[in-house]
Amino acid sequence: MAAAVVANGDSSKAAFAEIYSRLKEEMLEDPAFEFTDESLQWIDRMLDYNVLGGKCNRGISVIDSFKMLKGTDVLNKEETFLACTLGWCIEWLQAYFLVLDDIMDNSQTRRGQPCWFRVPQVGLIAVNDGIILRNHISRILQRHFKGKPYYVDLIDLFNEVEFKTASGQLLDLITTHEGEKDLTKYNLTVHRRIVQYKTAYYSFYLPVACALLLSGENLDNFGDVKNILVEMGTYFQVQDDYLDCYGDPEFIGKIGTDIEDYKCSWLVVQALERADENQKHILFENYGKPDPECVAKVKDLYKELNLEAVFHEYERESYNKLIADIEAHPNKAVQNVLKSFLHKIYKRQK
Amino acid sequence: MAAAVVANGDSSKAAFAEIYSRLKEEMLEDPAFEFTDESLQWIDRMLDYNVLGGKCNRGISVIDSFKMLKGTDVLNKEETFLACTLGWCIEWLQAYFLVLDDIMDNSQTRRGQPCWFRVPQVGLIAVNDGIILRNHISRILQRHFKGKPYYVDLIDLFNEVEFKTASGQLLDLITTHEGEKDLTKYNLTVHRRIVQYKTAYYSFYLPVACALLLSGENLDNFGDVKNILVEMGTYFQVQDDYLDCYGDPEFIGKIGTDIEDYKCSWLVVQALERADENQKHILFENYGKPDPECVAKVKDLYKELNLEAVFHEYERESYNKLIADIEAHPNKAVQNVLKSFLHKIYKRQK
Repeated sequence: MAAAVVANGDSSKAAFAEIYSRLKEEMLEDPAFEFTDESLQWIDRMLDYNVLGGKCNRGISVIDSFKMLKGTDVLNKEETFLACTLGWCIEWLQAYFLVLDDIMDNSQTRRGQPCWFRVPQVGLIAVNDGIILRNHISRILQRHFKGKPYYVDLIDLFNEVEFKTASGQLLDLITTHEGEKDLTKYNLTVHRRIVQYKTAYYSFYLPVACALLLSGENLDNFGDVKNILVEMGTYFQVQDDYLDCYGDPEFIGKIGTDIEDYKCSWLVVQALERADENQKHILFENYGKPDPECVAKVKDLYKELNLEAVFHEYERESYNKLIADIEAHPNKAVQNVLKSFLHKIYKRQK
Repeated sequence: MAAAVVANGDSSKAAFAEIYSRLKEEMLEDPAFEFTDESLQWIDRMLDYNVLGGKCNRGISVIDSFKMLKGTDVLNKEETFLACTLGWCIEWLQAYFLVLDDIMDNSQTRRGQPCWFRVPQVGLIAVNDGIILRNHISRILQRHFKGKPYYVDLIDLFNEVEFKTASGQLLDLITTHEGEKDLTKYNLTVHRRIVQYKTAYYSFYLPVACALLLSGENLDNFGDVKNILVEMGTYFQVQDDYLDCYGDPEFIGKIGTDIEDYKCSWLVVQALERADENQKHILFENYGKPDPECVAKVKDLYKELNLEAVFHEYERESYNKLIADIEAHPNKAVQNVLKSFLHKIYKRQK
């Protein structure tokens, strides 16, 4: 998935970047382990390689959301530090998922460089590095939040979101990887469930939930906010699937290969939904093959089925539904947070 | 590592076995994820394959330790359930480590069956299964311990022990796998550090720490107990290294291959410590090669250096030191727990 949300202001971005070195230093001085020079260097390099290099939109959105919830643009030093720290925890979580996903997907590159496990001398040590990234989150939370009234809620939140993400990843893996290619497994319900669990919770719900906890709120009272953000995350991933095929490669920064890769994309699911027997046959014969002729046949079929229009209609409906749900929320500050997320992704071209 | 401790009594063992199905059912009904039939079956099979099949000595020792701390042989229903549940959390943790370690070590078999990632249709999905096993621990703790006064301490304990284990595993991986084989990296300090972090904390300290928390104790007051158990875990692993070469294969249930596998074993480290230039040369030439002639040369050298006697001397000293440390502990019940662990492993032949 591409990055979720663009930063509100450069000020958040600068404050955010500054905190990374401090958190890394703390991880390298953790008294729970007697580091050797070699292991210090390893972790240092592993963190820079995997935690940095993304756009940090998830992380920065914790700060922006927290500001909106407080109704101020100025945070004091401690508030800034805590918001940035939670933002970095989400970036660490993302790094953990990406390191392990790339191994499972046998991917080549990530963020413009070879995947971590493809770096010489790393290989499958990357599995353990993934684990260490996850462990760092617990270490960071313990160091900076133990004693806060919301410490337990924070741990439970990260645990729940991680569990949902791993479960979504399992669903994706057994649906799209297991055994022979079988398009009959793909449908809207399957697509939705994978996207929701694998992406939406950690990319959209988690940053806002962190900001809510920082603001002293009880997450049990924000079930509706959770639903709206998961819905928004689903919409975001549908855009991603759409742009993979219809986006401008120059603009989105990569050439889409969902068709070749047999991905359970929103497009193929919509095509399956709409295809007659003949068209289904074309899909079954050509989807998931690297041959450019096969890819072209699939794209022709998408055109025949008017999937561009189907997408624009979906986009319009999603937007209207989301706006209505947001405006039904009793709290204006929460509405602002949600609208800010929505407006950053609505009709995005990359 | 072989299993740590033999169960106290059959009663604990039976009570323990019973709880597994209940915990598994709960994981399969977790409301945090909408399972499909396929994912349900996957998790069900994955749990049975990886969590079961061991001797469960770590898990059962939670119950036995808890009984000794309470000074009773009878626990009520809730106490039994909670102790068994924490025991199973340790078994889940062990399963998580083993699934991922086997991938990183490219191992063939585990507990008499193919490693999970070698099962057809599993492959690298096993990485995600490892993650799910870890996540189950948090789910189990949340479900059964949230609200207990020691809930936060329990989470922090599992997090700290997991972090130490992963850090020990990193040390092992970069010392023994990275780059070319280089025996100059192996020495007693390195060996001790790997063993302590990778094995001793989760195998010896964690079960007792769980029992202490169940008994309402504050772990901060048991730093000495932690040190003793980590020491005992180190001694246990040294025995393991010794038995790999000198144990009876019929009795220990496997044929040792530490020499062929270039393991940072206590034996090779002792040999390096004692070898003259000539003998060092023999080690450098022959250690870590599958050729039986090379292995024989290493074993001859071990004999020349009298490593059997060195081990027996180490064993005697360790035992005396441990007994002295245990008897210096002010609490009789705690002494009983520690002595029970020690007597189960002292002079073991398997």
